[in-house]
Parts: sequence; C-alpha cells; structure tokens
Amino acid sequence: MTAISERCADMQASPIRKLVPLANAAKTRGTSVYHLNIGQPDIPTPEGYWKALKESLPEVLAYGPSQGLLVLREAISTYYSRAGIDIDTDEIIITTGGSEAVYFAFMTTCDVGDEVICFEPFYTNYNGFATMAGINLVPVTTVAENGFHLPSKSEIESKITEKTKAILICTPNNPTGTVLSPEELSTLSDIVQKNDLFLLSDEVYRDFVFDGGSHLSTLELPDIEDRVIVMDSISKRFSSCGARLGNMISRNKTIMEAALKLGQARLCPPTVAQYGAAWIYHHLSEDYYENIRTTYQNRRDLLINELSDVEGIFFLKPEGAFYATIKLPVKDADAFASWMLTDFQLNGETTMVAPAAGFYATPGLGLDLIRIAFVLSDDKMRKALNILKNGIKTYLETVQ
Amino acid sequence: MTAISERCADMQASPIRKLVPLANAAKTRGTSVYHLNIGQPDIPTPEGYWKALKESLPEVLAYGPSQGLLVLREAISTYYSRAGIDIDTDEIIITTGGSEAVYFAFMTTCDVGDEVICFEPFYTNYNGFATMAGINLVPVTTVAENGFHLPSKSEIESKITEKTKAILICTPNNPTGTVLSPEELSTLSDIVQKNDLFLLSDEVYRDFVFDGGSHLSTLELPDIEDRVIVMDSISKRFSSCGARLGNMISRNKTIMEAALKLGQARLCPPTVAQYGAAWIYHHLSEDYYENIRTTYQNRRDLLINELSDVEGIFFLKPEGAFYATIKLPVKDADAFASWMLTDFQLNGETTMVAPAAGFYATPGLGLDLIRIAFVLSDDKMRKALNILKNGIKTYLETVQ
Repeated sequence: MTAISERCADMQASPIRKLVPLANAAKTRGTSVYHLNIGQPDIPTPEGYWKALKESLPEVLAYGPSQGLLVLREAISTYYSRAGIDIDTDEIIITTGGSEAVYFAFMTTCDVGDEVICFEPFYTNYNGFATMAGINLVPVTTVAENGFHLPSKSEIESKITEKTKAILICTPNNPTGTVLSPEELSTLSDIVQKNDLFLLSDEVYRDFVFDGGSHLSTLELPDIEDRVIVMDSISKRFSSCGARLGNMISRNKTIMEAALKLGQARLCPPTVAQYGAAWIYHHLSEDYYENIRTTYQNRRDLLINELSDVEGIFFLKPEGAFYATIKLPVKDADAFASWMLTDFQLNGETTMVAPAAGFYATPGLGLDLIRIAFVLSDDKMRKALNILKNGIKTYLETVQ
Repeated sequence: MTAISERCADMQASPIRKLVPLANAAKTRGTSVYHLNIGQPDIPTPEGYWKALKESLPEVLAYGPSQGLLVLREAISTYYSRAGIDIDTDEIIITTGGSEAVYFAFMTTCDVGDEVICFEPFYTNYNGFATMAGINLVPVTTVAENGFHLPSKSEIESKITEKTKAILICTPNNPTGTVLSPEELSTLSDIVQKNDLFLLSDEVYRDFVFDGGSHLSTLELPDIEDRVIVMDSISKRFSSCGARLGNMISRNKTIMEAALKLGQARLCPPTVAQYGAAWIYHHLSEDYYENIRTTYQNRRDLLINELSDVEGIFFLKPEGAFYATIKLPVKDADAFASWMLTDFQLNGETTMVAPAAGFYATPGLGLDLIRIAFVLSDDKMRKALNILKNGIKTYLETVQ
C-alpha cells in the first residue's frame, strides 16, 4: 500500500488534545473532569453576537469576499482606532480562526525550508502550521525563573541564519501569561530591522492585560510598519472559539496581496458569523472588556492563592491572557497528567491539565511543567485546584 | 525590505475572481451584471438549516471536536447509506469547506515536490492548494470534442513518474459538467492499483447527474478502498457556500489519522453551522434532491437551446454539475470576458463569464474557452445568454 506523506507521519499530535481519550474514559467511569487543559473560555458569548447573526440570516447562504465582509473589517478598524491605532480596512484580511492567520503569516513570509525564530514554551499549534508550511521553528528558550521574559538580544540574534525570515511572538502569551514590555518589543524591533526580518505577532489576548497594565501592540512600533504582521482572533476576546473567525493585519501591501491570493484559494471565511462579529466589535463598550479582564485577573489571583504555598510548585504571576505555566515537583508532567485521568479521583472528580513539554521545540525541556488555563468559574477553579493539589501529593507519595 | 515568499509571489490569482474589479466598475457606472462566472447557487438554502442552526445556539460558542461534531458525521454516514454506500463516522472528517478537504488530501498523500496527476481543465483552486502543499499538478488534457472525457489509459500512465502519489478527479466535473463513466473509473482503478497511487475524488456535485443517470462514487469501486479519498462539501448540494463546511472521507485509517492531526492544528470547523448541516443531511427527502437536479437540468437545456445555434460556438451537453465549458469564436476569451465588463452593455446590462484558460495548467490551452455556471433563474439565464450572444457578435465585428 502506498504510504502517507512523511510530513504528516512525522507531525506531532496535539499535546493539548491527546489526553482527551483518557478524559473521556474517566467520564465513562463516572468521574467528573475539570478542564484546566484547554483555552476554552466559559464566559458567555455576548448576546448581541447571536442577535446580529440571527438578523443577518440570508435566503441563500452565499460565499462572501475572500478578504472578509467589509462590515467586519470596518468594525475591526474602528476597534483599533479606539486604541489609538490607525488600521485601514485594506490592511485587514478576515481569516478562518486565528489559526489561519498564523498559517497565512508563515506562508506569505517563508518558503519551504525557511526558519522562524520563536520563544519556547510557545502555543503548540504553531508546530502544526510550521509543518504545513514546510518551515522550521527555531526555538529560543525562556525560563520560569524570570516569568518567561525574553533572554538577551545577543542570545536571540545568535539563532539568526541565512534562512531566518521572521521572529514570532505571542503577547500576552499562551502558554505563560507573559506580557512583553515596551523595552523587549524595542529590542525585537532593532533585531528585525538590523537583520531584515518580519515580526509576526500573535495578539489574540491583547485585551487581557492585568494589574492596570496596557497592551503595546507591534502595530504601534515605529520604523517597522512594513515588517509587522499581527494575528488576531475573536475566539478568546468574545468567547466565540467555535465561530472560527480571526484576522491578519499588516501595513505591508505586498504581504496583504499575497494573503489575499491564499484567501481566494479557500474562497472565504464563514459568512454569517461575520455579521455577529461585526456587531460585537462595534457595540461592546469598555465595560465589557473591563469585566472580562477583571474576571480573568481575579481567577489568576485565586490561582496564586491556591497554589503558591504548595511545596515544590513554582511560577511567577501571569501578567495577562488566561494561562499559567507552572513547575511541578514531578519528573514527568505528561505521566502525571495522564495519571490524574486514569488513576486519581477525589470524591468522584479529577482535574485535567496540559503537560507543557508539548509547548517546547527542544526535546527534554518542560518535562516538569504544566499549563493551566483559568477558564472556569471561581468555585470550579477552587475545586479543580484542590483536586490538583491532592493529586500531586498522592502522586509523590505513591507513584514517583 | 525583506521579500515575501517566492511561493506566494508566484501564486496565481484566482482567475474566477480576478475580473471582479471590472465587474464592480461596471456596476458603479450603472450597468447591471449577470453573474455566470461563479458557482454560487441562487437556490435558497433549505429553511431547516436555519431552523436547526437557531435552535442550536449555545450560551458559549465553544470549540467543537477537530474531526467535526458526531451528529454531523452520523448524518453524513446516513446520507451515504441511503445511496447504498457504507461509511463509518470514523471514516469522515468535517472540514472547513470542501477547500480544506482538498488541502488535507494533498497534505496527507504528498510531500513537497511530489506530483498529482489531474485532468485539465480543472477546478482552478486546486492550483492554490497545490502551491500551499508544495506539490506539482501534472495535467492530462481533455478536449471539448469528446465532452472532456478521459483520454486513453496509456496517455494517463505516460504522465506517471517516481514522484507521482495520486490521481485527482472531479465527477461530476467543475468546470465541464462531465460525469465519468463506470468504465472510466474502472480504468483509473486499474492505474492506481498498478502504480501504487491514491485516487483523490472531488464529488461535491454527486447529486447533480442529469438525464436519469446515477452517480458512481469512487467509494463504490472494489479493490481500492484503501486508496480512495473523497472530498465533499455542503456548499452546492444545500446552497450553503458561506457555511464553509465540507468533509473528507477515506477508509484508509492511516490517512484519517494524518488528517486528524492536520485538523487538530486548526482546532475545529465552524461549530453551529454543523448543527444546521446535520439537520438537512438527516431530513431532506429525495424530493429535495430531485427538485434541484431538475432545476439545474432545465437550465442546462435552456443553455443548449440558447447557444447551440450560435455560429462558432461549440460544446457537448453537460452531464452533471452546473457548469459548461464552451468554445467561443474568439482568440482570447480572457480579453473578451474583460471587454464584456468594460466596453459592452445591452440596455444597461452585461454578462460576466469565467475565461477558461485559468482552468488549464498547460500554457496556451483553453484560450478560446469560457466557463458558464448556470446558477441563475430561467428568466435571468435567458437575458444573460442573450447579452452574451450579442456581445460575441459585436466583439467579432468591432474588436477581433
């Protein structure tokens, strides 16, 4: 029988989703599972989204424009102008989820065999899109001890080769919650200018910066307007992961023309969801953003309260997004996360976390780390973390 | 400034959509445009789709499973069982449009530089996905004179090299309306077995076979169960192009595992649309299919009546789908199609067609061909074709 492609055979299965069968088996046994493993917000999708969607339902569910509906691109432009960022509708292409924005960014900047520098741990699905695009992600390691902030300029520059086309960042960061400082972004700006690179910036969590901090977008950096490509999504901001709507933004016209050709090949992003998205971009007030930011920040504080006194656990306060990457006193967090699903329960309940090794490109790193997504209500978070604490204790006593 | 990727710079802009700016300019001048250029059905989306979608709206618009909702995969399995084809839910992955199914089929079967044999003229967007996947489409030419049916087995086999991984077909065909016969499919089955290849089959138009004929799916071919990958979509069948829902079907477990890894990278297809799609797959009766088949067949007949007596025009009767590829008495159909938008109008109206050269991989072929999609009501079709006939006459008299 003819073989499947090597690239697919070699492709990593999603480390976030690969424990799902174990979770399903636990549920079949009657054990409830708290999901701290996936960035699926529990906050209701704004009602206006559904209302606008229902009002838009056409007689014929037709293709839309490949670059996305103008009404949505205008709404996004307005959203950015409220943040003092001037973006024209032609500088936005609506994508099928932030996922497609990542893929388009890789495809428009890189040929097969090219390299993109990224900072590990990183959002694991970058790996999938790198495989699809045939490019190599070259990791620069960040560490828990300084809250996963960037290493020195020279360390970053040491990874640049003739094949390097771009640097990829995510701020606020998934999986660490780290928010890059203006100084760090300035350093990156220097590096991309000096080395003639693109700066690909995943800003999906830009509205979730805690402790009164504000988000500095790469779109605000001077002198590199032509080098910046922003990848964004409505999934987290508006609790609408299932809409599959994101966008890619660049002031580089050649990049946008190339992205449009990719967009034409897949015809268009989902049509009616775009009306819902346009409505919420236009109509949600600062109260909405303040509310969800506060909600996630309070959960972050709860996480710190619950876990910081646990012997052997280490993490610094996440500055944004809704994730924490946490060092556990275990040798193999993957085995521990599996064990929590297969062997552990507390009063018929257990907790699912994401082992963080999958967020590293360098083999052997992240083995004692997990990622927690704080996407459950305070009450459930408390229960889930209590189970996790008990699980760690039992695991250390009986397994490790 | 650092350059964009060569693959995107070299990528063909959609030949179906590239005349859109000219059409928009015509509309701005006050000229109405009949769109025979794009396969956007005018038939209303079934009301049950909207009803089921509205009833499914959740509190949180969450990610669904990467392989698609079970309820939709079950509905598709039931749809196939009504046609006497046994497909398990595990043999189906829901994709973001038929587009993504094409991309997944290329990615799972081919590595960079591999070759897929296809029959030109072919659906032009295959080019985009071939570029994305880094593969080469190797064309075998079919001709208008025999209704674009397959050439001899030896001619097809002469294109096979060590790099060939698959043969790609589309039946009923876009852009020709050709339906491959059981004998032609049997020949292809022989070829893929003898040469150890996959058979990638785009069967998006499987419900639109005219004149009482029935569709033979590649899923029904004996002995090549492990080699067949079917790409399908709800876009045309249910007039729901904007839903962006398709599926890829294969009984080859390794292929399906590989497709799931690709699926996990992009997380999931659009969620709520899947409930609508499941409803219509389950509930639409044979009447629905009979109705739309008759509608398209009548328009096909109308096309033949209107055009077959025009001097210099040649085409055989399309056997299915809703397209005809038509030879015109012009030297450059691209220039003619543009001229229809920029220079011609009849009582303030003009007609937009798709020049067919973009459906060929071989340079210089298809220059005198256009594709017409019969996706307008009888009345509009008549008017549009009358304008086309008049346009041809004027073009021959004044331009060519």
